[in-house]
Amino acid sequence: MPYEQITERCFASAIGPSGLAREEFDRVLAEAAPALDALRRAHDGRTMPLLALPARRDDLDPARRVAQRLAREAADVVVLGTGGSSLGGQTLYALCDQGFGPKGGGARVRFHDNVDPATFEALTAALDPAKTAVIAISKSGTTAETLAQLLVLLAWARQGAGSAAGGRFVAITEAKPSPLRRLAEAHGMTVLDHDPQIGGRYSVLSNVGLLPAMVGGLDAQRVRLGASEVLKETLAARDPSESAPAVGAALSVALTRYKGAGTTVLMPYADRLERFALWFRQLWAESLGKNGAGTTPIRAVGTVDQHSQLQLYLDGPRDKMYTLVLTGCAGEGPEIDGSLGADPELAYLAGKKMGALMDAEGRATVETLARHGRPVRVIHIDKLEERTLGALLMHFMLETIVAARLLGVDPFDQPAVEEGKEIARAALAGLAPAASS
Amino acid sequence: MPYEQITERCFASAIGPSGLAREEFDRVLAEAAPALDALRRAHDGRTMPLLALPARRDDLDPARRVAQRLAREAADVVVLGTGGSSLGGQTLYALCDQGFGPKGGGARVRFHDNVDPATFEALTAALDPAKTAVIAISKSGTTAETLAQLLVLLAWARQGAGSAAGGRFVAITEAKPSPLRRLAEAHGMTVLDHDPQIGGRYSVLSNVGLLPAMVGGLDAQRVRLGASEVLKETLAARDPSESAPAVGAALSVALTRYKGAGTTVLMPYADRLERFALWFRQLWAESLGKNGAGTTPIRAVGTVDQHSQLQLYLDGPRDKMYTLVLTGCAGEGPEIDGSLGADPELAYLAGKKMGALMDAEGRATVETLARHGRPVRVIHIDKLEERTLGALLMHFMLETIVAARLLGVDPFDQPAVEEGKEIARAALAGLAPAASS
Repeated sequence: MPYEQITERCFASAIGPSGLAREEFDRVLAEAAPALDALRRAHDGRTMPLLALPARRDDLDPARRVAQRLAREAADVVVLGTGGSSLGGQTLYALCDQGFGPKGGGARVRFHDNVDPATFEALTAALDPAKTAVIAISKSGTTAETLAQLLVLLAWARQGAGSAAGGRFVAITEAKPSPLRRLAEAHGMTVLDHDPQIGGRYSVLSNVGLLPAMVGGLDAQRVRLGASEVLKETLAARDPSESAPAVGAALSVALTRYKGAGTTVLMPYADRLERFALWFRQLWAESLGKNGAGTTPIRAVGTVDQHSQLQLYLDGPRDKMYTLVLTGCAGEGPEIDGSLGADPELAYLAGKKMGALMDAEGRATVETLARHGRPVRVIHIDKLEERTLGALLMHFMLETIVAARLLGVDPFDQPAVEEGKEIARAALAGLAPAASS
Repeated sequence: MPYEQITERCFASAIGPSGLAREEFDRVLAEAAPALDALRRAHDGRTMPLLALPARRDDLDPARRVAQRLAREAADVVVLGTGGSSLGGQTLYALCDQGFGPKGGGARVRFHDNVDPATFEALTAALDPAKTAVIAISKSGTTAETLAQLLVLLAWARQGAGSAAGGRFVAITEAKPSPLRRLAEAHGMTVLDHDPQIGGRYSVLSNVGLLPAMVGGLDAQRVRLGASEVLKETLAARDPSESAPAVGAALSVALTRYKGAGTTVLMPYADRLERFALWFRQLWAESLGKNGAGTTPIRAVGTVDQHSQLQLYLDGPRDKMYTLVLTGCAGEGPEIDGSLGADPELAYLAGKKMGALMDAEGRATVETLARHGRPVRVIHIDKLEERTLGALLMHFMLETIVAARLLGVDPFDQPAVEEGKEIARAALAGLAPAASS
């Protein structure tokens, strides 16, 4: 397996009375068996396309061709879309670009998931419409924010390139008729199909998540390889204890049921996993937060949040479960030069790799949380790259699906969000158009 | 006042039984009177330097001179520091740079608050050491992460510029001896003093928060003006009901005490306030999260998190208070061109300003939350700029201080974090140095 899940510090035997008794955990874990059976049936019967994605190869070539063209022709690629249409791409693209442009050169991908008017004024002022490509993603093809973004950027691009501008635009949407698809067809955009049976928050392994990152040079096949390893283990599990995602789901649900953990903190020790934690936050919140059920997911980043949230985590209310993702980074990064300040107070740093500091702090935080009786799970990966990130993504999708079954909610719907969308649309429809200027 | 606080949707009269009864709120609000008295005494007796900052002018000229020099001489300014040494600067700098470089030209400020080895390898590969300036911030001058970052970048800069490299480095730290101060003096860095009596999470109005943003062209005096307006109102309040921060603190504490709100969501509808919400998250967590007290702060962003967290907020557990920050953006931004797709399903967007969409969604989310019986406070500002941001910053610092007094905890210490730092340092000290390479 591409990662190791270490659960011992969630139990009373390790952290005292705020941890789980073994029988509490075992009771919940046993309840996960029907969820695993359902996953196996869905996989074998091909009724859940998400589970078929890791083994798919046929859809990668078309996406790769589009990605390579955009990387070559554009200086900037703007990805429009929100929620599940953006966070998966952001998560994967973070492997390719650490804030200074893509490692291998080529176009820089920028994700715009809001309709902030000031941001769009800054964007259109800063980028060159003749060197900007756009990927617009909306599963239904009706998302108001994405359509507004797209109409604004299309008008902007046409001012420079005229009616040819649409040639640098790509849409990902379902095959059925929709405003987005009609717009794309009317303006000569490239269109890739969004799988109608894979909802946004589960779409990271489809072209929705992969295409933006492939512009940055991501090896999509290795992402799917990591995902498939995790899926295989869970499908082969004779018992929930043999499935890491089922164990994770049972831990989480048991800590909520027996220990009042109403929030769950995902805290990777890697800048490149900050967006991953944000992706998880949507996955968990929208899949479980219904009928009064669910727990509140919190995205944190180590070591940064040691200097922001750790006080609360160690000494605030005992209402949280913690998951720290640690990577084998101890030998990585620049060496800290001790000769610059021959200072005895700096001796503990001198000659160490920067990664040793990151690594020591992650492990120290695990121990400190446990010593304060806070339940902490560790997920360890040796090296952060496509395969291990693909494994983490599949782990947390499966964990979320199993947790939903344990809570008795549907992991795939989001009824309250639909209501919010309706209300926003009605509010807008009631507005008069802007005075023409 | 530069903002309006609208509280009616936190009460049972507006949202039903999950809202506060008026007498529950009044009881907590009355308890805030001694906290306001203490603030007045601290202000008049000059025993809390934070409260003197808004009226100070003497420290702005030295900071401005440094900022202007860095903006002129460097292409990139890297700010090193973590927690309160970074988030205030990030918050203010967001007004100057919306992700495409500073509006007025000049150096681009990049905040690095982590010791991720991969990030620092990318940074040193991408930036030009001869055109990069560095601001290193640590109040105590002993923060391990900041010292490690600084040693790495100093060695990198010296490879290019030799011993003159230190001239483009600035340190902000207390006047007393420390590793950071010694390092700064040994290498000819500019040093600005960190006020010893203003802790990191309360330092945004000092040179700690202001200097990085002044590089981007921020008008620091207007930030302080907005802060002083809020402070004056609270100091002049004859009764807690006349202080917006006291009202906010009482709402929050009463919702926790009587309605079980264990988390508090701050959700501004503005990309430029995303870092502000992150700054608040530290302020609230470190100030209140002690002795089992405190509530968990959550940073959200509208409209983005409507597509990620709203399902949980509307239909998950009733354990949250919501604060939405709305700005008067309805008339702003590009107009949505309806002629590009003469599609009846797009008619509700055609001719509207993008800001109208943002505005309508913010207001719709307030109503939707209230309709689901979720307590929502609205903070409305007409225009997001230095003065109104300064007002928000002072509002939330005062609200946090008053809330701490209501909860019976010290808003200014962070005992558990200190313990975590000790453990990390001990772990590092036990490591052997990296094999020299």
